Amino acid sequence: MASPIASAALKARVKRPSMLKKLCSPEDMLQHFPNGTYIGWSGFTGVGYPKKVPTMLADHVEKNGLQGQLKYSLFVGASAGAETENRWAALDMINRRSPHQVGKNIAKGINEGRINFFDKHLSMFPTDLVYGYYTKDRKDKKGLDVVCIEATEIKEDGSIVPGASVGATPELVQMADKIIIEVNTAIPSFDGLHDITFSDLPPHRKPYLITQCKDRIGTTSIPIDPEKVVGIIECDTPDQTLPNTPADDKAFAIAGHLIEFFEHEVAHGRLPKNLLPMQSGIGNIANAVIGGLENSNFKNLNVWTEVIQDTFLDLFDAGKLDFATATSIRFSPTGFERFYKNWDNYYDKLLLRSQSVSNSPEIIRRLGVIGMNTPVEVDIYAHANSTNVMGSRMLNGLGGSADFLRNSKYSIMHTPSTRPSKTDPNGVSCIVPMCTHVDQTEHDLDVIVTENGLADVRGLSPRERARVIIDKCAHDVYKPILKAYFEKAEFECLRKGMGHEPHLLFNSFDMHKALVEEGSMAKVKF
Amino acid sequence: MASPIASAALKARVKRPSMLKKLCSPEDMLQHFPNGTYIGWSGFTGVGYPKKVPTMLADHVEKNGLQGQLKYSLFVGASAGAETENRWAALDMINRRSPHQVGKNIAKGINEGRINFFDKHLSMFPTDLVYGYYTKDRKDKKGLDVVCIEATEIKEDGSIVPGASVGATPELVQMADKIIIEVNTAIPSFDGLHDITFSDLPPHRKPYLITQCKDRIGTTSIPIDPEKVVGIIECDTPDQTLPNTPADDKAFAIAGHLIEFFEHEVAHGRLPKNLLPMQSGIGNIANAVIGGLENSNFKNLNVWTEVIQDTFLDLFDAGKLDFATATSIRFSPTGFERFYKNWDNYYDKLLLRSQSVSNSPEIIRRLGVIGMNTPVEVDIYAHANSTNVMGSRMLNGLGGSADFLRNSKYSIMHTPSTRPSKTDPNGVSCIVPMCTHVDQTEHDLDVIVTENGLADVRGLSPRERARVIIDKCAHDVYKPILKAYFEKAEFECLRKGMGHEPHLLFNSFDMHKALVEEGSMAKVKF
Repeated sequence: MASPIASAALKARVKRPSMLKKLCSPEDMLQHFPNGTYIGWSGFTGVGYPKKVPTMLADHVEKNGLQGQLKYSLFVGASAGAETENRWAALDMINRRSPHQVGKNIAKGINEGRINFFDKHLSMFPTDLVYGYYTKDRKDKKGLDVVCIEATEIKEDGSIVPGASVGATPELVQMADKIIIEVNTAIPSFDGLHDITFSDLPPHRKPYLITQCKDRIGTTSIPIDPEKVVGIIECDTPDQTLPNTPADDKAFAIAGHLIEFFEHEVAHGRLPKNLLPMQSGIGNIANAVIGGLENSNFKNLNVWTEVIQDTFLDLFDAGKLDFATATSIRFSPTGFERFYKNWDNYYDKLLLRSQSVSNSPEIIRRLGVIGMNTPVEVDIYAHANSTNVMGSRMLNGLGGSADFLRNSKYSIMHTPSTRPSKTDPNGVSCIVPMCTHVDQTEHDLDVIVTENGLADVRGLSPRERARVIIDKCAHDVYKPILKAYFEKAEFECLRKGMGHEPHLLFNSFDMHKALVEEGSMAKVKF
Repeated sequence: MASPIASAALKARVKRPSMLKKLCSPEDMLQHFPNGTYIGWSGFTGVGYPKKVPTMLADHVEKNGLQGQLKYSLFVGASAGAETENRWAALDMINRRSPHQVGKNIAKGINEGRINFFDKHLSMFPTDLVYGYYTKDRKDKKGLDVVCIEATEIKEDGSIVPGASVGATPELVQMADKIIIEVNTAIPSFDGLHDITFSDLPPHRKPYLITQCKDRIGTTSIPIDPEKVVGIIECDTPDQTLPNTPADDKAFAIAGHLIEFFEHEVAHGRLPKNLLPMQSGIGNIANAVIGGLENSNFKNLNVWTEVIQDTFLDLFDAGKLDFATATSIRFSPTGFERFYKNWDNYYDKLLLRSQSVSNSPEIIRRLGVIGMNTPVEVDIYAHANSTNVMGSRMLNGLGGSADFLRNSKYSIMHTPSTRPSKTDPNGVSCIVPMCTHVDQTEHDLDVIVTENGLADVRGLSPRERARVIIDKCAHDVYKPILKAYFEKAEFECLRKGMGHEPHLLFNSFDMHKALVEEGSMAKVKF
């Protein structure tokens, strides 16, 4: 197969001549992917992932009916693009996946037992990878076979300028036997927007000398060993992102409670006037909170988070936001357009770091971050389930929720008080007696907030917590139900001298049982 | 009441003359403790706690029949001495207690609902205290009313040299309105054995510049505001510690598996020859592990832990241990004798830090600590319960377990596979289908070990984890039972497309039910 000829666009992005000699087509790379290959991809929250090679491999499997015969272990910082990993899952190409994923087919593969998935704290995943924990059972080698990285530029020294995410790319590169680089010419070079660090091994690890969101401690590009590069491919399609979920009334109500809470904390001297660096997740509640800040009196805000979304552009444009740093920029298609168009306005107010740094407990705790997240369910004692519906069905994975909620100064869970079941618009209460899976413990959370109100549980004993969470957060339909559970549990357990955290252990999932058997948690009887 | 006359021993310890003018008897301090007082004590794991003032207050309540009429909010770094806090609990003198406790009466008070107890990560407790989280609902003031500290010396500048623990003392002092100092002349001055730091508030927190166990970043004594000192009291009794729990056969078997595992990790290049800094809890298994290291080929070991115990003296004497640092030294009475007698041998190999530092995620992660702990129970998916028996009955509190197990390079849970119930020597399986309370999540643990074997769950999906934990760790009586649960759950959940972490949700506590109803978990039927 003849090598492709470098386009002018590509030449402008690849500053090291020897790299251009490795220019090839995706199909040339097929030889590196036998069944069982351990693969790493760049990417985080569906941006900055490789597109051409994964698509080529999916096409190859599809065309040749190789479903289930070419299966890979796939490691990506978090989720990659739906058109790549979700398609791979649909074609039964994934044997093992970690630490996070998004896509209907991949969730299906995990929950039907075809994909061995494990979710790990996003801060720890790259480090554990470098420790060799995920490749320790390999007989012939210690690392990953092939790592595919998206770049927006290759510098003269051969180092790589990533695109819209850093994620685990530095560590994937550290562990790579062979590297394939997809240079994306459909988007601008992101040169100068990254702060790149690697994971040292103990006993030689050093402090992260970051005391402000804007601090830099690394390089602007990822140094690589050029001898490991087996192919350079031009990519001419941008990240396939979706429009943002619009906020609804419940989300606005939650945002209102939170803004009021922040004002209260400032008034009592527990927060500075410009708050502290904020972490905000993905979803309509997160968007409403950031929107709420835009309309508040707060200014000179800072953001220390995992992923930067469209709403932060609004916050910049409103003059409220001084600086934002994360491990990825996941804008909607129109958000990316706006970002590229006003590049000069945003360029020096943004910094993308590796997920080991963006999610580092060390830095989150030092900065005193305000961490906010949405759970599957929260229980009356302030444990939260972030991952497994009914204790068993995996959604997307833990993500960075526990990195932030364990270490933030303010650890906040925001959720609607109910979700609909098939037959009841309030069939699922998000406040339950006992979480069916625990990812965040009662020792981690400070504040629970729903559209009904905000429960501040700092310094409260479990029985005190239960009262305030039921009172402030539960939906009116579930208040008497949860109160009945709690009061019965309290009576029984105190009587037996085991009432620190009262439970009717053998009835603790009765609300979930009512949902399964009668279509609504409201049908339960305690 | 006439002030007491300073003894020669006391004069030798109090180098600042103005402090001697505040010498008083414990009874003189009664005025500072009206009902409802917010009190802080020095102390951690039953050492370095104040003795005279707490005892005076207990005597006062007892003599005057004031049980339940003088109740206090009590904050101590971890547990204080049984003759103080446990006696206070027996006399119903505690309204609120955090973040940890040891003593039958205090556990009784908590589980019968008289004491509002909350357990918090020991690394976070002092910081949250300084944030004002535990005093935010006070109407008249923002801090603690009175803080009682044990000192072994007061320096010329008025600063305090603590005794056998640092714990949360720096932060308690930061938050104190009045300070009472008990100078303990029954034990030597510990001058030079501490490294004292305070908790800054965000956005002004700085990195902890520690890259080795022996690194110092603070001062050797605790600076205080002399105007806050309302009394100096001489204390002539040492810490009341108990002899160590001797290791049994199960503990030796567990230690054997762990030593073999460490050798395996060294052989595969994942650990250096002298391992990495170790954290080890309290109890007979911890003692067996440290004893096992003494008899192993490992040398030049380092310890980064919460509490240093007698077995570490053996490890020093065997020439195996280079340096040990913690927030407390909790020796047995004979251990303390040995320590004082050979002071010159140990003095420069030990360092005591505040619990914010000893338990800091930042440093634990940087150093790559090997963290080891004993749980109440572990489940087949590697969640662990460290605190609440049957989900409800509080034992001692979370302690530093989650500080270490979340952040260590190796997060290890060691437990006997079973414990006796009233009627069955193996009536309680420590491996269960689902933990009745979760303090450590599946995302945190790397290794589970019982006397039967060691399950290395790094990089495994939940279903893979369940198989290896049941196979390696469960007691022979419970292997078929747990296997039956898991296989039935797997079959049911995969069929329904919710099999990532298969559970029979409404039967997940059936083993616990069998224990309650039939006296043994072995009586369960799945």
